[in-house]
Amino acid sequence: MQPSHQFDSKLDLSLTRIVDVPRHLVWRAWTEPELLKPWFCPLPWKTVDCEIDLRPGGLFRTTMQSPEGIEFPNVGCYLEVLPDLKLVWTNALLPGYRPSPLTMTCGDENAEFMFTAMIELADHGQGTRYTATVIHADEAGCNKHAAMGFEGGWATALDQLVAMVKRRF
Amino acid sequence: MQPSHQFDSKLDLSLTRIVDVPRHLVWRAWTEPELLKPWFCPLPWKTVDCEIDLRPGGLFRTTMQSPEGIEFPNVGCYLEVLPDLKLVWTNALLPGYRPSPLTMTCGDENAEFMFTAMIELADHGQGTRYTATVIHADEAGCNKHAAMGFEGGWATALDQLVAMVKRRF
Repeated sequence: MQPSHQFDSKLDLSLTRIVDVPRHLVWRAWTEPELLKPWFCPLPWKTVDCEIDLRPGGLFRTTMQSPEGIEFPNVGCYLEVLPDLKLVWTNALLPGYRPSPLTMTCGDENAEFMFTAMIELADHGQGTRYTATVIHADEAGCNKHAAMGFEGGWATALDQLVAMVKRRF
Repeated sequence: MQPSHQFDSKLDLSLTRIVDVPRHLVWRAWTEPELLKPWFCPLPWKTVDCEIDLRPGGLFRTTMQSPEGIEFPNVGCYLEVLPDLKLVWTNALLPGYRPSPLTMTCGDENAEFMFTAMIELADHGQGTRYTATVIHADEAGCNKHAAMGFEGGWATALDQLVAMVKRRF
């Protein structure tokens, strides 16, 4: 494995939790569309579509739906795929590593900000040590993500993931 | 190897050449700072500094110097490193996959544009089939790169690479 990410508290956000489901099922919940959709958005938001091409340079696409029924598509590119261990993707690139034209948007406070996300999994007893790290370009993006409720949102989604794994397996 | 890049003539630029030096020496010229600096910029520009951390997520940094002595630093991140075969990096990410804050620059016609570059090498007789592909976010970036003289510049640099390899090895 690569050396672990050097965390920068001004630019990065992270969530570490111990969950009582095995690592390979957490991995599957992150990498199979039908296992991702049930948990990926904190309810009452939903993930109504998902497409995964699980390789470096491959597509990671989700469509989130607000309680009012408005759809929000997200497109990213996988960077590292180490099964059951580490998954890295970014929305700064489209599939095939093409820089995202979103990077050209500017002067718009609602413009989507760029980030790279890293999910790392390790054994912890019968369960899993789960670490999610989100890496931003600058403090503004990091602060915006924190204000949007990163920690609560990702923790709730993880709770939903664990509940789904326990229900299905 | 990954499926090869799907070339988009509106967004991408490429250069393919057969060169009469072996593949592994072309690879070394691209991946060892002391072997990169002599050829990387078309003369009379120079590459006065170079730092390479050759792994996915690792740093690729060069400093170019104009004939007037002005220095232009460039920082990118490696994405794929397949020795003697394929090298991919982007300036849309900093090392560790952090989105580049340059993506926030806007309204500035001289703002650096984002690209991903891919060098692919294959045997061709005693020599090498060399393909460089540069992948842009949008037509504006692609057109700007073409107008800057991508094809002539990259071809001249490749000539310098070949001459250096023949001189040194």
